[in-house]
Amino acid sequence: MSAASEKIRISEIFGPTIQGEGMLIGQPTVFVRTGGCDYRCSWCDTLHAVDSEYRHNWLAMETETIWGQVRYLSGDVPLTVSLSGGNPAIQPLGNLIRRGKQDGYRFAIETQGSVARDWFADLDFLVLSPKPPSSGMETDWDILTDCLKAATSCSSGGPRIGLKFVVFDDADYAFAKDAAARFPDLPVYLQPGNHTPPPPDDDDARIDLDGVMDRMLWLVDKVMADRWFAATVLPQLHVLLWGNKRGV
Amino acid sequence: MSAASEKIRISEIFGPTIQGEGMLIGQPTVFVRTGGCDYRCSWCDTLHAVDSEYRHNWLAMETETIWGQVRYLSGDVPLTVSLSGGNPAIQPLGNLIRRGKQDGYRFAIETQGSVARDWFADLDFLVLSPKPPSSGMETDWDILTDCLKAATSCSSGGPRIGLKFVVFDDADYAFAKDAAARFPDLPVYLQPGNHTPPPPDDDDARIDLDGVMDRMLWLVDKVMADRWFAATVLPQLHVLLWGNKRGV
Repeated sequence: MSAASEKIRISEIFGPTIQGEGMLIGQPTVFVRTGGCDYRCSWCDTLHAVDSEYRHNWLAMETETIWGQVRYLSGDVPLTVSLSGGNPAIQPLGNLIRRGKQDGYRFAIETQGSVARDWFADLDFLVLSPKPPSSGMETDWDILTDCLKAATSCSSGGPRIGLKFVVFDDADYAFAKDAAARFPDLPVYLQPGNHTPPPPDDDDARIDLDGVMDRMLWLVDKVMADRWFAATVLPQLHVLLWGNKRGV
Repeated sequence: MSAASEKIRISEIFGPTIQGEGMLIGQPTVFVRTGGCDYRCSWCDTLHAVDSEYRHNWLAMETETIWGQVRYLSGDVPLTVSLSGGNPAIQPLGNLIRRGKQDGYRFAIETQGSVARDWFADLDFLVLSPKPPSSGMETDWDILTDCLKAATSCSSGGPRIGLKFVVFDDADYAFAKDAAARFPDLPVYLQPGNHTPPPPDDDDARIDLDGVMDRMLWLVDKVMADRWFAATVLPQLHVLLWGNKRGV
């Protein structure tokens, strides 16, 4: 398919707001959330962008249309665009990234690392978040390694790369620790999970904020007791600020 | 005074816990809080380490004693040591930094930039937080510039440097914006203030968490509306997690 007619499945485009998680926490960001995912995590907090039952809300958009929307939202002032999902790696995002970089914008992607793309090398930030046992998913470490290779294939440097792990319980923690040991050069970000994720048809569902806080405190204590000082522990800041509200 | 007999005034040493603010947010840290300050900010949240009325709780400690305590708390596993206060720059911390770096630890300092020290060049992270109008203090920009010069005087690179601003109101925001414009190469971190800071004789005082959250939301909205996308906006995470509790 030619670049001109190539369509990207979009669930929502929103912002600017602050990035709520991981290595770019607190940074002004416009989010481009694609529709569709090759995973079905048990605790998915963006089912409206994952479950094909909701695909009637997704739009097949051309790169230029998406880019126009990002420019409009950001008032033509460059910032970081976060490509999220679902799994954005299953969409053809290479032209969007190249288009945006011409205008001085930076691009981050958030993906589980189940699909490698050559355009990972054009990103500014690559966040790989292998899913822990509580998700019900299994990581293919060869493909995740392919993602890293794709990102670093370009001689001009490539993106800053980080590993992010959602941790609900001891098994998830052990998984994160093992996974981090496979890639000792990568910074690791740990975050507690949201055990009251929104149902896909509710854009402002009730959340157990006390429970989310308790899990954060549990995770901090665990990392400190374990002296895993190379890990960074962060909450989902948007969840603390806005609960399960969508589009913020 | 010789290095051996040189004493440092210490208010508290605690951790490991996560850094709650700014460029190192979420990173495991041991805090070395010195006693004494050349400022008296109206909303100071660490008066127990500032007001000389509480100096009976401060200890004059030798570098080796402090370093032993940091090693004990961290179980001899290197991490980031945050030098905080009060204003840690008024204490003789050069030997402590050099001692700790021999053991592989990293050092960050948090200071208003009112006193420049040649040992700033030995730090890994220098956070300069000029105090906004609501504090009642005034910044001497020549001295703050001296702090930057001191930090970058060494040919071996020097610390990562960031500017941090507490923002309570529109005047504080305007101050932060002007100050950031003076140093366009430095990353900027904005954080809402805690308008219910603990009194110095209460180590777990009540906090208006809803008010803190509201101020964070106000600040995010303001930065986005203003399209100040070079700024990073972060809460005081330790305040969200632990309120005004001390030593966490």
